[in-house]
Amino acid sequence: MLPLPTHTNPDGKSLYNPPGPQSPFYYHFPKPIDESNNGFDFHVYYRADDPPEFQYAKDLHEKIRREFPELRIYKVWDKPVGPHTLAMFEVNTFNPHQTGTLFSWLVVNRGPCSVLVHPNTGNAFKDHTELAAWIGTPLPLDIEFLKSH
Amino acid sequence: MLPLPTHTNPDGKSLYNPPGPQSPFYYHFPKPIDESNNGFDFHVYYRADDPPEFQYAKDLHEKIRREFPELRIYKVWDKPVGPHTLAMFEVNTFNPHQTGTLFSWLVVNRGPCSVLVHPNTGNAFKDHTELAAWIGTPLPLDIEFLKSH
Repeated sequence: MLPLPTHTNPDGKSLYNPPGPQSPFYYHFPKPIDESNNGFDFHVYYRADDPPEFQYAKDLHEKIRREFPELRIYKVWDKPVGPHTLAMFEVNTFNPHQTGTLFSWLVVNRGPCSVLVHPNTGNAFKDHTELAAWIGTPLPLDIEFLKSH
Repeated sequence: MLPLPTHTNPDGKSLYNPPGPQSPFYYHFPKPIDESNNGFDFHVYYRADDPPEFQYAKDLHEKIRREFPELRIYKVWDKPVGPHTLAMFEVNTFNPHQTGTLFSWLVVNRGPCSVLVHPNTGNAFKDHTELAAWIGTPLPLDIEFLKSH
């Protein structure tokens, strides 16, 4: 492989990159993400015992269903379930474009809710820890639950 | 607006959503993200005083330039600059598809590096705090620097 150029673009700061073909990663998740089903889970957390916050989460859930009907969404829980230590609802994305669209939208629409974004690689423990991303304040997860499932 | 249906898909768990047109948010960032330039900045952090980690970051920088030449990327710093308390390099994305592609790729390729993903809304302080997302362990930022710029 030829070394990459070291000169900048006309802005004088960003690096000039030689053009190349579009990466296949625009259409397929990189390994070890298993894209045979959902590539990413988005978990939207809220305090169900705080009525205004719970209402915000329910309204957000409905907005997502109407704006992105092609995504997979599950019920609004009113208590913590599984490894989750706060009530949440879950939305699934199936390709990088959906993932970036929901991610960008939640960054500015999540309100008081924190959002865990994790891939599915077949290793639930790794997916929820090492490979996890958070929009907003990270919350603790039940690590023992994850280790045993 | 009609209420949304409450029955599930054939999987018995996810909610049935009536089909609808594709959201414009697949192609345009939601407000207040300013899409007149880069919508999101990705800041990839590393310990420049740890030779193996610094080398990992330099290799990652080169991989990104070769895999995604259409993204805007800046130099590999060897010390903290601006509000950043650890050395980093920056990559910019311009639409939701690019954002989801780079996000998905970094989730599994970031190695020991933490990644700050923040939008650009015209309010640098809010962009780096309330609107920030992290892949990997969140790092402190120089809040006083952000408040004064």
